[in-house]
Amino acid sequence: MSEAKNVAMQSRKIRVGMVGGGQGAFIGNVHRIAMRISDQFDLCAACFSSDPARADASAREQGIAAQRSYHDYAQMAQLEAARDDGIEAVIVVTPNHLHFPIACAFLELGMHVICDKPLSLDSAQAEHLIALSQRYGKQLWVTYNYTAYPMVREARARILRGDLGKIRSIQVEYSQDWLATALERDGQKQASWRTDPKRAGAAGCLGDIGVHAFNLLQYMTGLVPDRIAANLHSFVEGRVLDDHAQIWMRFAQGARANLLCSQIAVGKENYLRIQVFGEGGALDWCQESPNHLMFSQLNGDTQRCSRARHHSDPAVQASCLIPAGHPEGYLEAFALLYRDIAAALRHENVASNAHAALRDMQFIEACLTSQKADNAWVDFPV
Amino acid sequence: MSEAKNVAMQSRKIRVGMVGGGQGAFIGNVHRIAMRISDQFDLCAACFSSDPARADASAREQGIAAQRSYHDYAQMAQLEAARDDGIEAVIVVTPNHLHFPIACAFLELGMHVICDKPLSLDSAQAEHLIALSQRYGKQLWVTYNYTAYPMVREARARILRGDLGKIRSIQVEYSQDWLATALERDGQKQASWRTDPKRAGAAGCLGDIGVHAFNLLQYMTGLVPDRIAANLHSFVEGRVLDDHAQIWMRFAQGARANLLCSQIAVGKENYLRIQVFGEGGALDWCQESPNHLMFSQLNGDTQRCSRARHHSDPAVQASCLIPAGHPEGYLEAFALLYRDIAAALRHENVASNAHAALRDMQFIEACLTSQKADNAWVDFPV
Amino acid sequence: MSEAKNVAMQSRKIRVGMVGGGQGAFIGNVHRIAMRISDQFDLCAACFSSDPARADASAREQGIAAQRSYHDYAQMAQLEAARDDGIEAVIVVTPNHLHFPIACAFLELGMHVICDKPLSLDSAQAEHLIALSQRYGKQLWVTYNYTAYPMVREARARILRGDLGKIRSIQVEYSQDWLATALERDGQKQASWRTDPKRAGAAGCLGDIGVHAFNLLQYMTGLVPDRIAANLHSFVEGRVLDDHAQIWMRFAQGARANLLCSQIAVGKENYLRIQVFGEGGALDWCQESPNHLMFSQLNGDTQRCSRARHHSDPAVQASCLIPAGHPEGYLEAFALLYRDIAAALRHENVASNAHAALRDMQFIEACLTSQKADNAWVDFPV
Amino acid sequence: MSEAKNVAMQSRKIRVGMVGGGQGAFIGNVHRIAMRISDQFDLCAACFSSDPARADASAREQGIAAQRSYHDYAQMAQLEAARDDGIEAVIVVTPNHLHFPIACAFLELGMHVICDKPLSLDSAQAEHLIALSQRYGKQLWVTYNYTAYPMVREARARILRGDLGKIRSIQVEYSQDWLATALERDGQKQASWRTDPKRAGAAGCLGDIGVHAFNLLQYMTGLVPDRIAANLHSFVEGRVLDDHAQIWMRFAQGARANLLCSQIAVGKENYLRIQVFGEGGALDWCQESPNHLMFSQLNGDTQRCSRARHHSDPAVQASCLIPAGHPEGYLEAFALLYRDIAAALRHENVASNAHAALRDMQFIEACLTSQKADNAWVDFPV
Repeated sequence: MSEAKNVAMQSRKIRVGMVGGGQGAFIGNVHRIAMRISDQFDLCAACFSSDPARADASAREQGIAAQRSYHDYAQMAQLEAARDDGIEAVIVVTPNHLHFPIACAFLELGMHVICDKPLSLDSAQAEHLIALSQRYGKQLWVTYNYTAYPMVREARARILRGDLGKIRSIQVEYSQDWLATALERDGQKQASWRTDPKRAGAAGCLGDIGVHAFNLLQYMTGLVPDRIAANLHSFVEGRVLDDHAQIWMRFAQGARANLLCSQIAVGKENYLRIQVFGEGGALDWCQESPNHLMFSQLNGDTQRCSRARHHSDPAVQASCLIPAGHPEGYLEAFALLYRDIAAALRHENVASNAHAALRDMQFIEACLTSQKADNAWVDFPV
Repeated sequence: MSEAKNVAMQSRKIRVGMVGGGQGAFIGNVHRIAMRISDQFDLCAACFSSDPARADASAREQGIAAQRSYHDYAQMAQLEAARDDGIEAVIVVTPNHLHFPIACAFLELGMHVICDKPLSLDSAQAEHLIALSQRYGKQLWVTYNYTAYPMVREARARILRGDLGKIRSIQVEYSQDWLATALERDGQKQASWRTDPKRAGAAGCLGDIGVHAFNLLQYMTGLVPDRIAANLHSFVEGRVLDDHAQIWMRFAQGARANLLCSQIAVGKENYLRIQVFGEGGALDWCQESPNHLMFSQLNGDTQRCSRARHHSDPAVQASCLIPAGHPEGYLEAFALLYRDIAAALRHENVASNAHAALRDMQFIEACLTSQKADNAWVDFPV
Repeated sequence: MSEAKNVAMQSRKIRVGMVGGGQGAFIGNVHRIAMRISDQFDLCAACFSSDPARADASAREQGIAAQRSYHDYAQMAQLEAARDDGIEAVIVVTPNHLHFPIACAFLELGMHVICDKPLSLDSAQAEHLIALSQRYGKQLWVTYNYTAYPMVREARARILRGDLGKIRSIQVEYSQDWLATALERDGQKQASWRTDPKRAGAAGCLGDIGVHAFNLLQYMTGLVPDRIAANLHSFVEGRVLDDHAQIWMRFAQGARANLLCSQIAVGKENYLRIQVFGEGGALDWCQESPNHLMFSQLNGDTQRCSRARHHSDPAVQASCLIPAGHPEGYLEAFALLYRDIAAALRHENVASNAHAALRDMQFIEACLTSQKADNAWVDFPV
Repeated sequence: MSEAKNVAMQSRKIRVGMVGGGQGAFIGNVHRIAMRISDQFDLCAACFSSDPARADASAREQGIAAQRSYHDYAQMAQLEAARDDGIEAVIVVTPNHLHFPIACAFLELGMHVICDKPLSLDSAQAEHLIALSQRYGKQLWVTYNYTAYPMVREARARILRGDLGKIRSIQVEYSQDWLATALERDGQKQASWRTDPKRAGAAGCLGDIGVHAFNLLQYMTGLVPDRIAANLHSFVEGRVLDDHAQIWMRFAQGARANLLCSQIAVGKENYLRIQVFGEGGALDWCQESPNHLMFSQLNGDTQRCSRARHHSDPAVQASCLIPAGHPEGYLEAFALLYRDIAAALRHENVASNAHAALRDMQFIEACLTSQKADNAWVDFPV
């Protein structure tokens, strides 16, 4: 993004608070770096942990004033709402089961909510949050960071413009290997809550990364399936939630999709890849090489399109932080999403992704319904 | 293969005939080149075409004596069986629907049969051919050429030896794009018969290339599924047979597999790839880079293993035609399969792949059954 | 870098100013983002441009107080030195010919200097700056950002530890294509000063990117050549400075190197790659895939080592911002270098890279001397 | 190549003999397989070894009649010349120092010569052979097999047609690692003669593989340098001949080239790669992915062109043995060269590569002259 364009935006930074994400948390740190890159936010309050000592130590690290380091999110919502210089938005980076009550608390007191995914534990909660968001006129965002990679946006622009013709087949995959063994039995923090139905919800791998893949599919193609069949499995002995899933989708427009998510795929770190095949062309994007997009035309050669080199979409070009050839990565994409959120919060013409996030919850539910029906097709939404 | 080892084998070349594969045929030429590389066969009779002029012109091209250029396969079987120097084996490279009667004719007259895939139109025919083969003591081979790539064999050796631990997930894909449009309407010969149920059988893409993917899965892992769910589709308007299919498999040992085959995947030429994930390691092989095998160990780096560099399996090492770094390709693999067939025909200890070929027919049938049942799981074999 | 480790560092941010880098400048923005990611610096003064209006507009954008937006770097040095809360370090991101006088001005008034590369126009200037740095006890850093990529550091750790054995051959390349045409004639700002001997110095491509490649070679291997032969060329008509160069090096320890830099290499964006071959192993790193390092052992397979997955060097592991599989890029590496600089400025045990930067200037001079001598070998330093 | 086109060619196979290439030889076997793929030759005489027992055993393996298994090449030339059905051409696959006397013997008796590279030990010998070839009206070919890869030919077609504009920079590399240790001291046959000046000539790595790289450069670009500077080195202790070399070239038309050849590059098997940069485009071909050619246009994306998919050059398309997506490799390229040779021997309009082979010898000599002059520039030819 050109700095010139930032002038207006920068007139005043947006005051935000954070719930969750204290010392040792992975995603809280990611959100903070992304915000700093974006240069649009001022993190001035936090409830980093329910453990007061840890919360306050984290707050000191982040340069947050002691009186704005909270130990209870409800109290934080109340007190921040009462301040003249109170936060305008809250960032929710807790385990999944707390997303809903926290988001409710802040929306109801007139603050925007920026929530790590998944938005909630189920679609009813998600619908409730969207209703609250509308009632109180506050924005509700879910940080689907992969949708902000410039080459993902270039792909979306090409697809929506019709460069591929009618879409036929979509192949999307998100594979990891960090749960190939029973890491949760060793007390590893990330593994423990993500494999625990009480804290992670009814889906394991599906809710953790499968939903990212589904969201990316929605975002890039603009398509929503009307039937889903899901095949979930847990390979690691003693694990209750799925650690591997394959999902088929059908679309009213005629397309077919296959989604694979796995956390037992030895050798895969964060292998997120989407291939979209249309009648006249195809696109292939993989997070392992995020600055490139492969584009094939029927009867033509496959082209490697590079970030910032010559985008078909001027908006994508403008969003790039650095010139072509200098690799941008995960944090840059996360920062670009935060730029979008800042623009939306400043009432620019940027639409929230809350409805896509609701469909993500419905997707999980449809998958679980299909799974119980011996992997049969179910309508979407159920 | 070392030339030294060939001495005994070469004492006499195996006399073979060919049915089908006249001028303009792709696969007939491939078989002939593969045989020449292998240096084990003498092509001395043929029924290249049912069109006498085309048959004879093809025979002249191949240096086959005029009196051994036949215009009818049954006559060829009779006359060759009667000659002292008659062919010992026949190679069948006709459209699929003729495989069965031709194979019967030659087996019943005491000749080995080497058949292009698929072996037959259905599993009943395949069982009948295997029974004939046993009754007459003649070998029955199907040219599943992909199983002869050295790195495929290295993968098989590693898997069977337990290098990956218990197998969990298998992802296999065979994608092409040559049928992305209705090529068959333009009278293109290959497209016409492959999309015509009368000549290709009840499966389109599934029978043409999906069965290669299934055969490769069987061969590399040694596993056979016990349940199958198949999702077939035809994207091109007016096409009766499937041009795209996704198939789920479950295995008694606990593994899950996903097979994708497509002939409308724009940008894919012959993208045949198999990934096998076990408890402790994973393998990834793709025909686009056939001389390499990627091997990942749990908590280790991914290694790129090269053909002929340092195989774990001495038999694979010995099979390589040329040293490491000089790329071998499709024809070399086809030739290595012909070496195996020659060894088997010389009564060396090489087992035929006819039973795997029967399972391939059963696989197609199970997929069609599942397809009719709204893609539900069916037992395998049905 | 773990956030825990930051606690002490964060006690107080380092106050810095910037000279150059106003609106529209590429590298100034990069330095600012890198500093924000690092979270160690407070940018509180600047002389962004010699054009007062542009300088002040840039300062407003960056939230710098109006009275600390200067229009003259000498005045800035004087006034900041006089403030109790004056800057502790200055970042110099002007065209090359201004690096020296600005660095002198700030060092002599007791401020650290962080300079974009190259440090100066010649080695005499560089030596003078190092002498000033020592006399005033202030640090002098050059932002050789490529040395901070985690996989570059992993490579360095492996080489210095002896994993490759004695080094034999080094191949390093930095190729771009943005100057393949006479862009400077169209008044493009970047092209204009970089191809102008008055502002860029006596070397073009060599000074712009060749020196990055040489610095990377020095850093990764710890080796310094003793003889150099350089072959410079300008392909674009009318261009005075080189836009393409090939340089041979010999090392007292027996190694040989080849350096290629080009700005006319159509299709290359920022293709920075280094391969180091030793007696027993080899390493290959390329900025196009910065999170991976290829490692080959004699008679072994080539391994793809991933950032943050299992580094041999714990310091490298600790430096990673995000987990394995999430791609880090150019800005992250730049930020990691700023972390090092912050640590050094806080008197932790981190050595400045000024001496390597001096050798970089000597390298340019040796190349120019060789070029004038019909590309003959010259001693290094000359 | 379409089989139809072969009809005329096949009317009669060309009778050939082989000198060298007995049991255990690598390259002799390669020539034989290539000939069999090409289907144009009948190998009916040989002097496989100077050891009579080994020669005869090899001949039996190849099905050569006992009376045409010779133990002395001069005798073979005499007797074959005297036969009505004597060989029309001889294939020379001995160590380098024997190429010249053998080629002389057969040319002088009216037989064509097909010689493995290098053609001779020096350019004087090469000139003599060309003169003999002209005097006796017999063809002289050197099996520069890499020039026959379809994608190399496609690259040549594009360059000669002007798709890249004026050529500026050429980077060519051929690296291996099999001589990274003193393999010759263990009596390894290949290593022994290739590192022995008496049998290999005055150049080691340069003569073995560097000359392939130079030949490929000549062939693909149609350019011949006018100045050369060479930097040869031997890394392995006790080795007399070079095992690593870097060569600069200048061309009258303004281009610059860099050639790297190495046999100590750990991790490289047969890494032959050429990149050609012109004013308006660039091409990149590497033997590790021989079925692809990367093509970059100024300000455009990089395209991956696939063999047999849609060549710009119809002759290249026609030369392909199998369809797109089925990988062809080293042996196929070797066979395509043999097809060319067959066509030339049948007096079709195919020019011999003997003059390029002469320039290859001159190239080695120019490199050795430069090496002795402290790597200074020398004229080409010297």
